[in-house]
Amino acid sequence: MANTFGHLFRITTWGESHGGGVGVIVDGCPPRLPLSEADIQPDLDRRRPGQSKIVTPRKESDTVQILSGISAGQTLGTPICLWVKNEDARSEAYNEMKDKFRPSHADYTYFAKYGIRAWQGGGRSSARETIGRVAAGAIAKKILHEQFGVEVLSYVKQVQRVTGTVDPETVKLADVEANIVRCPDATAAEKMIRLIEKIRRAGNTVGGIVEGVARGVPAGWGEPVFDKLEADLAKAMLSLPACKAFEVGSGFGGILLTGREHNDLIRARAGKVFTTTNRSGGIQGGISNGETIFFRLAFKPVATVMHEQDTVDVNLQNTTLKGRGRHDPCVLPRAVPMVEAMTALVLVDHALRHRAQCG
Amino acid sequence: MANTFGHLFRITTWGESHGGGVGVIVDGCPPRLPLSEADIQPDLDRRRPGQSKIVTPRKESDTVQILSGISAGQTLGTPICLWVKNEDARSEAYNEMKDKFRPSHADYTYFAKYGIRAWQGGGRSSARETIGRVAAGAIAKKILHEQFGVEVLSYVKQVQRVTGTVDPETVKLADVEANIVRCPDATAAEKMIRLIEKIRRAGNTVGGIVEGVARGVPAGWGEPVFDKLEADLAKAMLSLPACKAFEVGSGFGGILLTGREHNDLIRARAGKVFTTTNRSGGIQGGISNGETIFFRLAFKPVATVMHEQDTVDVNLQNTTLKGRGRHDPCVLPRAVPMVEAMTALVLVDHALRHRAQCG
Amino acid sequence: MANTFGHLFRITTWGESHGGGVGVIVDGCPPRLPLSEADIQPDLDRRRPGQSKIVTPRKESDTVQILSGISAGQTLGTPICLWVKNEDARSEAYNEMKDKFRPSHADYTYFAKYGIRAWQGGGRSSARETIGRVAAGAIAKKILHEQFGVEVLSYVKQVQRVTGTVDPETVKLADVEANIVRCPDATAAEKMIRLIEKIRRAGNTVGGIVEGVARGVPAGWGEPVFDKLEADLAKAMLSLPACKAFEVGSGFGGILLTGREHNDLIRARAGKVFTTTNRSGGIQGGISNGETIFFRLAFKPVATVMHEQDTVDVNLQNTTLKGRGRHDPCVLPRAVPMVEAMTALVLVDHALRHRAQCG
Amino acid sequence: MANTFGHLFRITTWGESHGGGVGVIVDGCPPRLPLSEADIQPDLDRRRPGQSKIVTPRKESDTVQILSGISAGQTLGTPICLWVKNEDARSEAYNEMKDKFRPSHADYTYFAKYGIRAWQGGGRSSARETIGRVAAGAIAKKILHEQFGVEVLSYVKQVQRVTGTVDPETVKLADVEANIVRCPDATAAEKMIRLIEKIRRAGNTVGGIVEGVARGVPAGWGEPVFDKLEADLAKAMLSLPACKAFEVGSGFGGILLTGREHNDLIRARAGKVFTTTNRSGGIQGGISNGETIFFRLAFKPVATVMHEQDTVDVNLQNTTLKGRGRHDPCVLPRAVPMVEAMTALVLVDHALRHRAQCG
Repeated sequence: MANTFGHLFRITTWGESHGGGVGVIVDGCPPRLPLSEADIQPDLDRRRPGQSKIVTPRKESDTVQILSGISAGQTLGTPICLWVKNEDARSEAYNEMKDKFRPSHADYTYFAKYGIRAWQGGGRSSARETIGRVAAGAIAKKILHEQFGVEVLSYVKQVQRVTGTVDPETVKLADVEANIVRCPDATAAEKMIRLIEKIRRAGNTVGGIVEGVARGVPAGWGEPVFDKLEADLAKAMLSLPACKAFEVGSGFGGILLTGREHNDLIRARAGKVFTTTNRSGGIQGGISNGETIFFRLAFKPVATVMHEQDTVDVNLQNTTLKGRGRHDPCVLPRAVPMVEAMTALVLVDHALRHRAQCG
Repeated sequence: MANTFGHLFRITTWGESHGGGVGVIVDGCPPRLPLSEADIQPDLDRRRPGQSKIVTPRKESDTVQILSGISAGQTLGTPICLWVKNEDARSEAYNEMKDKFRPSHADYTYFAKYGIRAWQGGGRSSARETIGRVAAGAIAKKILHEQFGVEVLSYVKQVQRVTGTVDPETVKLADVEANIVRCPDATAAEKMIRLIEKIRRAGNTVGGIVEGVARGVPAGWGEPVFDKLEADLAKAMLSLPACKAFEVGSGFGGILLTGREHNDLIRARAGKVFTTTNRSGGIQGGISNGETIFFRLAFKPVATVMHEQDTVDVNLQNTTLKGRGRHDPCVLPRAVPMVEAMTALVLVDHALRHRAQCG
Repeated sequence: MANTFGHLFRITTWGESHGGGVGVIVDGCPPRLPLSEADIQPDLDRRRPGQSKIVTPRKESDTVQILSGISAGQTLGTPICLWVKNEDARSEAYNEMKDKFRPSHADYTYFAKYGIRAWQGGGRSSARETIGRVAAGAIAKKILHEQFGVEVLSYVKQVQRVTGTVDPETVKLADVEANIVRCPDATAAEKMIRLIEKIRRAGNTVGGIVEGVARGVPAGWGEPVFDKLEADLAKAMLSLPACKAFEVGSGFGGILLTGREHNDLIRARAGKVFTTTNRSGGIQGGISNGETIFFRLAFKPVATVMHEQDTVDVNLQNTTLKGRGRHDPCVLPRAVPMVEAMTALVLVDHALRHRAQCG
Repeated sequence: MANTFGHLFRITTWGESHGGGVGVIVDGCPPRLPLSEADIQPDLDRRRPGQSKIVTPRKESDTVQILSGISAGQTLGTPICLWVKNEDARSEAYNEMKDKFRPSHADYTYFAKYGIRAWQGGGRSSARETIGRVAAGAIAKKILHEQFGVEVLSYVKQVQRVTGTVDPETVKLADVEANIVRCPDATAAEKMIRLIEKIRRAGNTVGGIVEGVARGVPAGWGEPVFDKLEADLAKAMLSLPACKAFEVGSGFGGILLTGREHNDLIRARAGKVFTTTNRSGGIQGGISNGETIFFRLAFKPVATVMHEQDTVDVNLQNTTLKGRGRHDPCVLPRAVPMVEAMTALVLVDHALRHRAQCG
């Protein structure tokens, strides 16, 4: 179950950065959805390394192939297998890592768990694993958009101390894609890019905040107890590599307000219910209330830096390790499509669950 | 599945604040564990309303009964059913609520989802639902303690702007239980209590931060991809009523550091691996690294305030609603055992999963 | 998961024949279904010991209480907890069994699995466990009947060598309930009853065949691969105590025909598709085809006999054991409501799954 | 979930007979198991079409590739993706089927379920889907053999009226593989082969019985209630294409005996418990008792015959259809590795579940 996400719209990812490639099985996709590689590739291109000067320069085309589940351009209702071949498996680049654990990576913990050093490219902890998520997420976004009128979007909100100003209610995909850092605030974006370039040149890395948004979710999606919408979103986000924090609506900041101040008052107009503020972030008691859902997540700075750092080898001897060759100064621009994918996967699963129980 | 949590140590909660009571089924508990109500009642007492002047005064003894799964004081390996009868079902206290949705409560969203107004006591969104979690969590804590040497603890870290200073490595249960607000920093605790009392008298409410800790978790628990330890913890915490945010290790604050600064360097001494800092919060790539696991979560101020606020009734007409009678000024002291319970449930599930796959 | 059945309409049973009782949680029930104990008790009465001279005389009223999930006579969409108290826990009746394993019972295998002898009343292997299933099944049958127009029925087809003639297309509940052995063929029923009485007087037991029927299932329910409708039915039936065999449609007998003879030819009339024979038993490739679903299952003779038989004690010493007091000469009449319950649970789950994926 | 089987050793199959191929993800495989394609290919060759004159002549090499989960010849503990390319996708052979539903096939039921006619090669209902099961089963068999000392085997017991005599306690793989029909009784095998050849020449088909055996399973595997070992085996077997019936131990025949005759008496010798007969088929109350597990399943005659038969087209008009070209006279010889695979998948899953809960 460790590699499966979702109940009714269910994905299982597989693959390492070495070996035959990475991919995903999507099980539970409704039948008769028009679908081709062209629906999926654009999000993979947004996730791809080498797409700009501020992300990892690793060269992979990440071209998706649909292996099953489609006939004559339509989904069959059967499992959809999506596959992306590995191309740039330069395992020699990792040679030194073979016997050393990279600090703040998953190298040591995988070794402790499985008793085996699958060092090439970081194995399953490689960011390549997220290819399957992004590919499946593209399908989920299409279903949400076409069958439920829901739009899922995310963008870079903050890089280290540089914060953008963005309105979750109105921001558009074109605004996000207008620059290489994927921050819809053009002025902040410029500063962010300059910061990342500086950090990259210093062989260092930097983290920040991605904000996720879902607009048009009707009131009533989500489950009351353990599978609250915010709980499933939190799990989805914290399952992304390097994500360390999640907050929905007012989040940590909300604790500075009293209950009187924090409550979202309810009004109705022409038979439509709405709240006058949205500190709940569109979710109350685990269930959507019809307002825009929004949340933020923190990505720590990437662990691989071009500096010598203390570590331990597989024989548990103290040593040092220095990143070599290419490095990824900031995961944020590429995290944007990942966040959208995970958001869409959570929402489409809850849409189907709602339909199952409540008709 | 909405009311079930966990894979191998699996709980299902049931019950509303009206009706025959609330409870939980624990499935997957190892056999031959000595267990009686005395192992469970103390945590229920820590969760109970009316335990101090700063929590809701509702009167319930919350006495647990074990209905199944035990013979001669030992677990059988079969499902354990725990039941707490409802006593204080003063549904008249909720009469006005019958037709009105409480702002920032789950009233409207449940209505939107299920098409029925189960108004008495808030139905499943009532905090009484957490009784089952706390009861099951007490069993999970006992297993972790006795069979794996793991200690789970949590405490109030911040009430609105009042922050305590606590060392996650050394804090003890006795420190937490030393005062009614459950903040181990005695000076801060006093300020917190005064603040909550003031807020209560004003008919208002206040939120804050609870910190959770797990010590003694061996390296290797957790799963690499979707069921990362931090992802499961995030879901567990966000599934608690009023929880709006979660961060593990350095969390949101970690984004202010560069990668060089943020990395936890690894050292070995006498065959034992450790990190010189713990910004990872004891988890790397979803798997425990042997350091102390710690995380923080934000609880928003309780929604029920003793002031008139705008809302809508079940006929979607604008109206106002004012909380009456008792109210809960601050959920934090009672949230502490809930956080411990959810932490223990996540950990014992991963302990069993690790044993299943890795022997 | 061992005590949970179903995906979307999901039940979890709990309880032993000793202790506080037995029960079930039903999770995923659609909201706004009118429901009270009166919908459930009749099936429990059909399952109850002591209902006639040909079943076990154990005295239990098996009165069901709904503890949660209902308000004002309607389901809330939240978990329904059903509870039946234990009354006749004459554990002294089992005293000799305390240290001996009953042959062909689950005594030794439970001991081997859990390392503990939960001897009272057979623990979870007691037929009392099926109370939860029958109670949940009554809800499932109501949903199927009211919301999907599906009728579920079962009856005794054969006791040892005495076989009844019954038409699955037309048999009615009243025919089944017309006699105490629950065989709608009155002549055969009389012979069956005489046989069971004779066997009971001899301190012996006898098995036979129950046939299950579902009429009105629309074409299209079921899943193509692992969760085929017949696969889920087979699992459901083989999970009943003493069930040793399952066949759908032509079953074992079908292998005597060639493909030409066995195929169900398809015809259409007025836009409605049907088959001219029904050797498929209403299911093709795991999915219903709109014909009547029918299947048979074999129950072995009950293991407890009033004769001395070789066995082993908990110290693994050879010994003998003789059943004492009451014994159950034939499980078949009481198995009928269990088969209906499991059939209904499988079908309602697939109905909801179909609605989730295919709209 | 429809395409996933197992809880802890969990497989997900994908692929149709048209498109990019078929495959399986194996999630939960223990790490450090030596594994290569050479462990898997032999069972695929036993399942392959064209292997003898008595099975379908379709030409596919069915060569397996491991795409993930392995490094340096060992499993990593991460998901193993196995892929078999499609080669012989002669969709023109199916042209007539495009608009007509084959009688007693899944054509009409898939159409009813998904609203789309995925006619090429039968889509997911194609026997090619079982390639993934057999490949995953080969891994499961290896784990059972090397880590638990369990041997899984199956063989053809009966073809129409021709029955072989085989001792489940002693039969060996070499006996099964000694002839093309996979019946270890050489004399019966010869008759079976002659019968199948005759049937094939007549453009007809024939069914029969496969027996499955697991030797060396220790007492204590299985779960008491819904996930009884026999229940999971029944589901596994009924999920195979064309399987219509399952019986464990004495099965349907056991109902002719009384309880006194049917009970397996227990004895102990030198601290080892055994039964003097094995009518239980090695399972009591859902849990293995240490005796040999054995069961039988019936496969109906293959539906595709070379004769004109009544059917309906996609416009629901009456028509006829006659199979053309190659046809499969008897599925039994190729079903043998499928039965072994499903048996092994059930057992390894329960082995891991037992280890998780009972240590």
